[in-house]
Order: sequence, then structure tokens, then C-alpha cells
Amino acid sequence: MTASDVFPVEPWAVTEPALRLDLLGRTESVFALSNGHIGLRGNLDEGEPHAVPGSYLNGFFESIPLPYAEDAYGYPDTGQSLIDVADGKLIRLLVDDEPFDVRQGTLHEHARRLDLRAGVLERTVTWTSPAGQTVRIRSTRLVSFVQRAVVAVDYEVEAVGGPARVVVQSVLQANEAEPEGRDDPRAAFALQAPLVGELLTSNDLTVSLGHRTRQSGLRVAAAMDHIIDGPDGTVASTETSEDLGRVTLSTELKAGATLRVVKLLAYGWSSRRSMPALRDQVDAAVAAAHRTGWDGLVAEQRAYLDDVWDRADIELDGDERLQQAMRFALFQILQAGARAERRAIPAKGLTGRGYDGHTFWDMEMYALPVLTYTLPVAARDALLWRHDALPFARERAAELGLRGAAFPWRTISGPECSGYWPAGTAGFHVNADIAEAVRRYVDATGDEAFESGAGIELLVATARLWMSIGHHDAEGCFRIDGVTGPDEYSALGDNNVFTNLMAARNLLTADRAAERHPDRARELGVDRAERKAWLLAAESVVVPYDDALGITPQAEGFTRYRRWDFDQTTDEYPLLLHHPYYRLYSSQVVKQADLVFAIFLFGDRFDADQKRRDFDYYEAITVRDSTLSASIQSIVAAEVGHRDLAYRYWRESAFVDLDDLAGNTADGLHLASLAGAWMAAVHGFGGMRDHGETVAFSPQLPPGLQKLTIRLLVRGRRLRIDITSSEVGYEIVEGAPLDIVHEDAPLTLRVGHREAIACTPKEDVPAAEPPRSREPMHRGVGADDVSATPQT
Amino acid sequence: MTASDVFPVEPWAVTEPALRLDLLGRTESVFALSNGHIGLRGNLDEGEPHAVPGSYLNGFFESIPLPYAEDAYGYPDTGQSLIDVADGKLIRLLVDDEPFDVRQGTLHEHARRLDLRAGVLERTVTWTSPAGQTVRIRSTRLVSFVQRAVVAVDYEVEAVGGPARVVVQSVLQANEAEPEGRDDPRAAFALQAPLVGELLTSNDLTVSLGHRTRQSGLRVAAAMDHIIDGPDGTVASTETSEDLGRVTLSTELKAGATLRVVKLLAYGWSSRRSMPALRDQVDAAVAAAHRTGWDGLVAEQRAYLDDVWDRADIELDGDERLQQAMRFALFQILQAGARAERRAIPAKGLTGRGYDGHTFWDMEMYALPVLTYTLPVAARDALLWRHDALPFARERAAELGLRGAAFPWRTISGPECSGYWPAGTAGFHVNADIAEAVRRYVDATGDEAFESGAGIELLVATARLWMSIGHHDAEGCFRIDGVTGPDEYSALGDNNVFTNLMAARNLLTADRAAERHPDRARELGVDRAERKAWLLAAESVVVPYDDALGITPQAEGFTRYRRWDFDQTTDEYPLLLHHPYYRLYSSQVVKQADLVFAIFLFGDRFDADQKRRDFDYYEAITVRDSTLSASIQSIVAAEVGHRDLAYRYWRESAFVDLDDLAGNTADGLHLASLAGAWMAAVHGFGGMRDHGETVAFSPQLPPGLQKLTIRLLVRGRRLRIDITSSEVGYEIVEGAPLDIVHEDAPLTLRVGHREAIACTPKEDVPAAEPPRSREPMHRGVGADDVSATPQT
Repeated sequence: MTASDVFPVEPWAVTEPALRLDLLGRTESVFALSNGHIGLRGNLDEGEPHAVPGSYLNGFFESIPLPYAEDAYGYPDTGQSLIDVADGKLIRLLVDDEPFDVRQGTLHEHARRLDLRAGVLERTVTWTSPAGQTVRIRSTRLVSFVQRAVVAVDYEVEAVGGPARVVVQSVLQANEAEPEGRDDPRAAFALQAPLVGELLTSNDLTVSLGHRTRQSGLRVAAAMDHIIDGPDGTVASTETSEDLGRVTLSTELKAGATLRVVKLLAYGWSSRRSMPALRDQVDAAVAAAHRTGWDGLVAEQRAYLDDVWDRADIELDGDERLQQAMRFALFQILQAGARAERRAIPAKGLTGRGYDGHTFWDMEMYALPVLTYTLPVAARDALLWRHDALPFARERAAELGLRGAAFPWRTISGPECSGYWPAGTAGFHVNADIAEAVRRYVDATGDEAFESGAGIELLVATARLWMSIGHHDAEGCFRIDGVTGPDEYSALGDNNVFTNLMAARNLLTADRAAERHPDRARELGVDRAERKAWLLAAESVVVPYDDALGITPQAEGFTRYRRWDFDQTTDEYPLLLHHPYYRLYSSQVVKQADLVFAIFLFGDRFDADQKRRDFDYYEAITVRDSTLSASIQSIVAAEVGHRDLAYRYWRESAFVDLDDLAGNTADGLHLASLAGAWMAAVHGFGGMRDHGETVAFSPQLPPGLQKLTIRLLVRGRRLRIDITSSEVGYEIVEGAPLDIVHEDAPLTLRVGHREAIACTPKEDVPAAEPPRSREPMHRGVGADDVSATPQT
Repeated sequence: MTASDVFPVEPWAVTEPALRLDLLGRTESVFALSNGHIGLRGNLDEGEPHAVPGSYLNGFFESIPLPYAEDAYGYPDTGQSLIDVADGKLIRLLVDDEPFDVRQGTLHEHARRLDLRAGVLERTVTWTSPAGQTVRIRSTRLVSFVQRAVVAVDYEVEAVGGPARVVVQSVLQANEAEPEGRDDPRAAFALQAPLVGELLTSNDLTVSLGHRTRQSGLRVAAAMDHIIDGPDGTVASTETSEDLGRVTLSTELKAGATLRVVKLLAYGWSSRRSMPALRDQVDAAVAAAHRTGWDGLVAEQRAYLDDVWDRADIELDGDERLQQAMRFALFQILQAGARAERRAIPAKGLTGRGYDGHTFWDMEMYALPVLTYTLPVAARDALLWRHDALPFARERAAELGLRGAAFPWRTISGPECSGYWPAGTAGFHVNADIAEAVRRYVDATGDEAFESGAGIELLVATARLWMSIGHHDAEGCFRIDGVTGPDEYSALGDNNVFTNLMAARNLLTADRAAERHPDRARELGVDRAERKAWLLAAESVVVPYDDALGITPQAEGFTRYRRWDFDQTTDEYPLLLHHPYYRLYSSQVVKQADLVFAIFLFGDRFDADQKRRDFDYYEAITVRDSTLSASIQSIVAAEVGHRDLAYRYWRESAFVDLDDLAGNTADGLHLASLAGAWMAAVHGFGGMRDHGETVAFSPQLPPGLQKLTIRLLVRGRRLRIDITSSEVGYEIVEGAPLDIVHEDAPLTLRVGHREAIACTPKEDVPAAEPPRSREPMHRGVGADDVSATPQT
């Protein structure tokens, strides 16, 4: 089912025109609201029916045991799982004593709309109760980008056709029962009612609840207040118990009369602060929101987003569906990162509990490229979170017998939570990915304070890790053996090209930082000898090559492995659910871009022919069982001239959640794929490469589009690039002049002056073939049909 | 602490002259009695104190859940754990109302003696109760080699110095509490009282108990009867409850008078038979034992063992300690295998619950070589067990997407029970090891019925597995990628030499069997094309070589890995308890003989220089954290001329349990190491190679010995070889003439005629150095001192 079947094409919103109970899990994720600190799934106001009730605070987790059939040294014994805080988005409605439930009575109208410019989720309902009373309900939900702790709901019910007795209950419910499918009964047990009540206060229409997690010992508080507008005779009462705060409004509505409740909600958590301090914090946040008022909150939200779109919107002329998906994607990255503020950006943001709410390398290699060029302060904050987690990473490195810092493959607060080391801890490239994100952020912003502060510490700690992971062999080559690259259908390979080149860049970047900040380097104990060793390792890093095939193996020996029999593999995807690791690891089958990712990031290490040969080779064996893959394939496909394929992969990455392409959007959005859609636009067709201090472009118009316009922030300048079939225009919208590179030629841009450069259409190379039955999921979208029929 | 401190040196027994409570765990294992069907740890008669109470039946297990922090396709979810059956060796004694307990009162004498010729465990005790009454106790315990289901205990108590009121309770106790240290509480729970009572009968002095396991659904029955010899007025009573059978004898002994009880005990279990059928079976076994009587059981046992020693004893002149250890070792292999009869031979026999009672490749590559040449019927039966488990192995292969049969890395009844696949399922060489054991057995016995029956099925099923694991690359080389060889400090390597050569031999052996038994081959669907493919794969199998170093890498790339820093590694052994797999796998550090094992088995693939170079290279990086290693290193050390080192490794493997060299003899004996001691004698200094149908010898006298005499069964002939410094003598003690090879020259042996061949002393090459602090554990035993002072 495609998005347009569920969500009509429109430029600035995602709308579900009629309730689809069968898609509730998906819409809960798609309609999730978040500011990076608070995340609320798009549950119905009344809470039920639901697929997964979800109210999350970034970094708020419970500890769970990690069991092993055969334990070994260095296996983490404790995991972390994102858990629900008290659910404050609940507003229950009774009409003439009958609870409003979309499964009962008659639903005349039920529309939900995520407004990407207003930053709110709207719902309009017309419902007749089983007893025959009709009401109209209108609710608007908002998680404020501006007031970080605040959620607000504007809820209005109107009697239609005749008078109605109406009761509205505004609920704050902790330890809501959660559908659980965990294999390990101990983990399931730990996650059952994980919150222990510690505080309970109420006063008139406000309630505050405080809880503590049983194992992880974190404290959380939530407070709510209400602004009521109803007919005379509306009565309010407030009840509380350990896990419940409830304000009940009871009234009689004449036909056409309305009861309106604005619910103001604030959350806070801490691992250190006392419960009274937390209570005061959330009460204060509610008070501030009360002062701002509903209209004020809405206006702030709109202003915040107007500014975002002004500097970051990507416009497509000729593909309205992709236009919508691109704005949805950027909005979701923003929601995940905007106010995370020194907390992680999880793989699913705060839209679901998939992957237990963990953060992976996706953050540095997908989410942060977007944020670096659209909301750089959020990229910085995410890296400051990594910096805050350095003590965990140093401890882990020591545990592994390594130097420097070994960041976790997956975590919430910092410790390694991976329970399968060959695809966890052995994915050491996460450390180079962090270093690369530091370099990218520093180059894109010129933030020297960051570089000389947290930045250089991260760079030096990760550089030292690589020096202890790798070694020089007898010939002097710097080898990195037995590690796992991005492709999770390979593991424990020797000299994975992506990892080796990333490690080398990590070493070079650390050296550069030490050069720029010699005092800081000295403080960190970096001396000449160490820097010399870094440079020697970086320049002698092994990049294997298969001379017979003329192909770069993604790791040593890879191109000699058994070829996968794709003809015998049709409905067995994702392969990992149908085949053992042994078979995947020892075969030439690739889950996600690995060597192709290296081609993207290290363009100068491969000549044009080699890039195309390698891309085509890996294209035939890459199954994209990870949603992290299509975007990277899109970028390199665009570079090597497979523009149709590039476009199709761009769309695949953009539609991942609106179309539920991976079948598990219910568990949360695929942030990396959504970020990848932005990357496919900017790095792919925009041809942007940011491997040095000067950003370079090599733009080309995607097939089927009339125009592509990209907005970016580079070193504080608002930059706009428009691409047509005949011309590329660059303009600084705001800020000082900026040197860039266009097609290998330097170019200086100045504010208000559009540099227009005529396009030489690039060679279009027939697409390489993906494995059978693994064509991009939008087969119809090639040059042939896109240009003829706009996809809507 | 060395064995001689605990167990005095003597040729035909192992004696603990005085009770060492601090070594109870070790002596329970060393004094375990077993016939391969029943196994009883050497617990004190009265049951307590104990380290681990142990009463096992081969193959009788409970199922336990195997948990994973991150589950994946093909991971087994159910494990198997050897569990205790009803403990029938318990005989409790009360003296004037005070329980006999070695921890109370005064122990004047406490000696235990395992008699290796009589096959019994004797105990003599003189004890004064806290109240001052002295008794003398003498007990003899026997697990019959002849009557497979039968255990007998002869227990006698004598009043010393004055009259004593004596009560003897003969107990049969199910669901004895077991000290547990399991990580997973679910597994611990499953193993708590795993037996459910199903049957309970008693009659006079006999009791039968029947139970069923909760999860695995196996039934077990035990019956006991008693023969009593006591003074007039001795009163007997019998009590039973679900988990208890108890016969109580009460008497008054005058000074010097004795009460003697012979306890006869029988066990049986089945996955299919009904409880009444099992009950009748054990009752019948007790009845038969009753008829035989104690003296008859003892006489049968002695006759059985006389015959074993006559055909299998290894005599050493000049090292009495090693002589004792060698007899202990052979006795334990015999105990593990003698009457296993189509059940597995676990890594620890039936002497403890280490490794959950699982069987590994140790069976085929260590225990079976010994049994093949000493008790071939037991080798055959063990392979028939593998054949019985073919359905599990075929199912497992299908689950893994492979053809043929994939035997489990570890199991009790047949299904894969490994919870860590890189060192479990990926150790596919177990399949070639089984094929090699088939070939060895067939060549050593000429058992064509077996070859054409179960043998060819095992060979074809495993050959087919290899054809689906391996593949021909573009150059036609047959590669086996991503598998794990014997060295568990490496995993998922490409073209592990041991594995590749074993797979090739497996293919050749299957082809040979198909050639010999064409009708059977046809029945199994083997055609010309398949055999041709086998031969092609076998002859083109990849054996990597490092030209720069002139060394054979144990797997591709191995010799380029980081070298381990042994200077920084002193008290961190075994390494796996102090270092993560990542570091072990990516370093040149070897847990146990791997490439060196291949040199032993495939001597014709390496020239003499290469063997020595390779041996020395691996010697420097092999830490022997597995007790499977020393024996193989000993064999190859002997071949390449490092005779002192060979001798020291021989001793290390032989003393593993008497000296508790691995520190965990309490968990059960190290059967593979004990079997390895035999291999070091026969394959090492005896120089026996059995890679073809004609067995070959290249004997040399170990340093420090005056003479080494080896007895073997080859193709039904009892063969004796004596080796001195000047001469080797071969003689057929019983049987038809036999062609052998001595030092590459054919030689025909005839009964009663000793062929004496003068020895040319071999070149003695100074020993290669093991890693620092990993010298053989008996440093004093080199040529220098052994020749001067016999080790005692």
C-alpha cells in the first residue's frame, strides 16, 4: 500500500482523511510529535484503541538483564530500554455516560492531520454514540520546540443536534500496560510497571506525579494544568493516586455549545536531582506555559518552524509525492534532534520503542549530516552527548584491552548494550563515525570553541582507539583485522575498506585538531611522536584490491566468497530471518552499502571507472535489508551516472515510513532513512561533498523533475541552490561571502547575488541491476514514466 | 600441588591415604566409577560432605531454555543438561544415635583406593564418634562392566573397643539438592528437582523408584536390593516416598562384631518405554546381580579388566608417575566408553556435570582413537550413536540452508545445544572428524558390515555437507570460508587448513566407501557425477601459504594478524577469562593445536622442514588454554625432533586430573587430555600413523625412559611394540599375520615372533619455546633430569 492510498499528496501536511484502524501502529509513528526531549506517539486522545501507547522522555530508561546461553568476557550484562513516562496526552470523553470509542457508535468523520509548518497534530471527529447522541470533537496537540518541557492539547467537544451530558477526563497515567513480546521473561518482568510512585500533589486543576524507576534509579516528574471554557454549571474535580492524576469536567451542552479544555503538561527527569526539585521544575514549566497560553504556544511553534523551513526546505518541481515525503522527513529529523540537548538521537527518535530506544552510528552518519546543515546547534549538542559519555567509552576500551575510547554500538545513556558482539562491539567504525561527525560539524560551522573543547577530546580518544585496534604488519601496512563494517551480512572481516579509510580519516582529523590547538593537545598528552604515528598509520592503511576482478573487496577475501543464489531467493527477505549468520557472512551478499559508502565518503581514493565498476559489482549483491542502504546507493548511483536508479533509491528512502516499506513503521520511524532522503537530495543530486573545509557541489537535475531547490546553512550562511536541466544557481540568502567549489572550480558566493552556471548534462549510464526481486520499491518511478506522469 | 602429594605413586591404583576435605571436588571426579552407561562420582558413602553429588545415566538429561540478548535465525532455543538420577550409592551410618560424618568426631584413618585392575573403589575408615564410640568401616563400590545396569556396594561396619548400637540406612534419593551456579535463572529453575515421581514399589529389602523429567519427558527407574550379614537381632525396615527409598538396618554390635550389607542397585532409562516396562527391567537386573552375588560381580569385573590390560596396557620403564597416570588415563577412557552402547561419550565421561554433560568433537578425535585400538566395539557403538542422531543432523543442515548432515557442536541426544555459534555451529569440522573416526575405525578393524551400513551413510551425509559449505572460486580452488577450526581463539576464518584438509579427506573417504559398496552408494543416491565432484573438490581444496614468512597460516590472513604481547601477559590465563573474543580472534594467539593438528593428521602434505618451521612458529603463540592441546603438540614435537618438549607435553596431558592442572577437575575429568596422553605415547613416541589401511610406525624412546611398551589391537590382532634406545620390537601376541610399515619400509608380523629392528637414534632438535609463562606444567621433566632422577 503506498502513501497516497493512506495519506493524500499535499505539500505541507500529512493527512489521514478517515481512520484506518488496521494502520493504527503506522499512524501512531507517523503522527508522533516530539521536540527531541519529549516524544508522544500519535495515539488517539482517548488512549484506546492503540497499537503502542507511547510517551517518552529522551534518555529515560529502565535497566534490563542481558542473558546469554554462553557468556563470555566483556559481554554487557545489563541493557537499557526506553520506557513510557506517565501518559499525559490522555483525554477521555463520556457522552451521556457512554465512553467515546471509535470502535463503538458511528464515526461520521475522523481526520488527523500533521501540519508540517504549524508543528501540530490536528484531529476532527464527528461521532454518534451508540445511544444516538452526536458530538463533534476537535483536538490539537503540540510538543513545543520553544518551551522544551511543555506539551499542550487543545480539546473541544460540541453537542450536535441536541443537548448532551458530557464528561471530559484529563488523565495523567503512569505504568500503563504495554503490549510486550520479549523473549526473555526477566526483561519483560523488569519492564512491567517499572515506575515506583514517589510524589503526588494536586491543587485545583493541577496535578503533579513523581516516580522513580525500579532498576536504573532515574526520577521523573510530570505536571498538568488546565484552562477550561465551558457553559455555566461546568463542574471540575481532581483525583490522584500513585499512578494517576485526573481532572474531571462535567457539563451539559446545548446543541451547538462547546466545552473546550486546554491541557498544559510538563515533563522532567533526572538521574541526580531530588524529587522535590523535579516537581518544582515541572510545575514551573506548566506555569510558564500557562502564562504563554495556547495561542502563544501555537504562535511560537509556527515562528520556530518558519525559520527552519526558510533555511532548510528542499523544493521539488515535478514530484509532489516526493516533495511531501521530503518535508515529512526533514520535519521528523528536526523533531528528533531539535531539543535533545546533550542527549542521544535514537534510531527511531522518540516515535516508538523499536531497538529499545537505542542510538547507533546512524546518529553520526545520517541524522547529524542533516542537522549540521539545517540546525547545527543540535548537531553540536548530540556530539556533546557523546563527549559526556566518554567515561563509559574509556572504561569500555579498557575492558576490551584497548586504548582511548570505545563507544558503544547501541546505548541510551552510554554503556554498551549490544548483546551480539560480532555485529555490536566489533562494529568499531562507530568511533570513526563520531570523529567524522565532529570534523563535519567543525568544517561546516567553523565552531572553534567546540573543536578545541569537546571536539579534540573526542578526536584524540578515538584516534588512540584505532592505534590500539590496528597494527603495522611486517611490510609496514596498517591493518585492522577482525572488525565489522556497515554491512551486517558480513562480520569480523579483515581490513574492511570503509572502516580502514574512516579510521585513517579519524587519525588525520585528530592530527589536524592537535595542529590547530597545540595547548589542548598538550593537555591531552598528545606529543610529536604520537602524531607522527597517527600520520604513518593513516597513510599506510590497507585498502585491499582484487586484481583479477578489478574490484575493491569490501574486506579482504570478500570477492572470493560464495555468490548468493538470488534466483532461489524470492520471498526470503529480510534474509536474516531466513538464513543463519554463517551463511550470510561467508557469502557475497550485502545487507547495506558498505564499500559503496566508502566510495561516497572517500571519492578521491577511487577513480571514476573504479567507482562505477565497484558500484555495479556491489549493486548486484546488495539486498537493502537495512533501510540505511538506499540513500547511500542513491548518492553513489547519481555520481556514477545511474540517475534513474539514484532517483528510485531516493524515493525508496523517503517513503520508508509513509509507505511502511520495511513493514515495521509501527515500532517507530526509520530516522536514518528519512535523513538519507535528505542526503540523497543534497549529496546525491546536489552533488555536495564536504570532505574538506570548502564545500563542493556537482549538481544535476533528477530525472523527471523540472527543478530542485536546496536550502542549507554553511558556516552561518543561508545558501540556496537551484538546479534545472540547463542551469545551476547559487545564492547566499543571508550572511557573509562564502567560497565553494562547483565542479572542481572555486566560486565565491555573495549575499543577494545568484551565480548562475550553465549545466552540461552529465552522461547517463544505464542502471546496474540490483538482485532479483530487490528492485527499488517503486519500480514505476524511472526516467521513462516520471518525466511523463508526475508521481502523485 | 602435584599428584604425588595427593596420590602416592603406585603402578596399578590411585590412593588417597588420608581424607583431604579441601580436595573433595577433585577426588569425587578422580574416584568416579562408570561403565559408560552409569556414572557415579566418588562421593563418600554417607553422601556428605560433598562438592557435587553425582549419579548419572548416559543420555539422561533435562531440557533447559537457551536465552539470547539478541536472538537470530538458527539459534537453538533449547539446551540439554545432564542431571542426576536417584542417588543409590548413599549408605548412611548412625553409631549410638550419632550420624557418621567425617567432619565430626575423630577420624583415625580414612583411605580411598581406586583399583585399576579390580575396577573397584575401596574405602577404609576408623572413626570415633563425638560420644566416644569407635567403628571401623570398609566399603567397596563397583559399577559393573559386565552387567551394564548394575552397581554394587559392599559395606561393612565393625564395632571397635566396645559394643555399639549401629543403624545403617541404605538410601535411594531422587531430586537431591544440587549446588547451582547458573547465570540464567530459568535454566536453574528447570534443573531444580527436575524429576517427577511416577512409580514407587517396595517389597522386603527391595525398593523401586520411577521418575519422569519435567521437560525432556524421559523416564528413569532405579531398583535396589540388599544382602545382609549381621548378628542375630538385626532388624530391617523399608520406607518409601516419591523421592525416597530407604532400607534401615538396626543392630547391636559387640566389640569386633560386624554388620555387612551388600547393596545391589540397577538403573534404566528410556524415552519410549513405559514405566512398568522400565521397572521390570531394573528389577530383573537386580535379580540377576543377586544371583551373581558380590563375589561373582567382583570376579567378573576383574576378568573383564584383565583382558583389557592384556591387549591395551602401556608400560614405561623409568617414569613411575607417568606409568600410573597412563593406566589411570586408559582406565578412565574405558570407563567412559565401555558400555555406552549407542550413546555419546561426553567430554567428561560420566564423572561430572562440566559442559552440561555434552559431547563434542573430542569424542571422535581423542576418545575414539584410543577405543579403536583397545576396545573397537565401543568405538563402533559411539559411531552408531552418531548414526542414530543423523535425523537431527539432517534437520540442522536443512535449517542452515546446507545439504547432507550438520552434526551439533555440543549435544547430549543429538540436537545442537551450542549457544554461541562462532565457536559452536561454525566449528563444522566436527562433521569431518566424525567421518575421520569412521575411516579410522574401518581401517583399524576391517569392519565391512559397519562400513556398508552406518559408515557409508555418515560418510555420504558429511561429504554432502562439505560440498554445500565449500565452493569453487573463479580459479577453480575449493574454498571453505567463514568457519572455525579447532583453535577457539580464532573464529570464522577463511580456509582453515585443518578444516579444509579434513573436509577433503572426508570427501575422499566417502568416495572410497562408494567405490567399495556400489549398491549402497546407489541406494543413497550417489552417482558418478557426485563422486567426481567430491574428488575435484578434494584435490583443489585451498591450503593457504605465507610465502614471505615460509609459514602455513592456520587460516587465510592469520600470519598477518597482530602478534600477542606475551610479555605483558603473565597471570591472565586462560586468556578467554581476561580478554574479549575480538582481541583473541584478531591476534596471533592460539588456544590449542590447530595447524599443528593438521600436520599430525596430514603428514604427507608438509615436508619435514615445513613441519618443523610451522611447529616452531605455532609453538611460540600457542597458550594451551585447552587441555586438548598438549597431546597434539607432543605428537608433532616428537615427529620434528623436539623430544624433550614432546615428553613434557605428554606428561602434561597425562597429569591433567591427578594434578588438577586446569583447576577444574572437580567438574569432571578431562577425557580428551587423558586420551591424548595415550595418543602422545602411541602416535608421538610410538610414531604410529594410521592414515591408510596399513598402519605405520616410526618409534623412538622417550628421553629418560629405559623402555616403552605399547599394546594395541589392529584388525583383530593383539600387537605389542617395545621400544628401547637401541631396538624396536614388534610382535603379534594373538591373531593372524599383519602387514605394517616401519620407518617407510613394509614389514610382515607373525604371531609369536618378535621382529627386532635396531634403532638409529633420531636427530634431537633443541625445543622451540612456548610463550612466556606457558611452559609445560612439569618443567623439571626434561631429558636432563628425567634420565638422572626417575620422576616419582
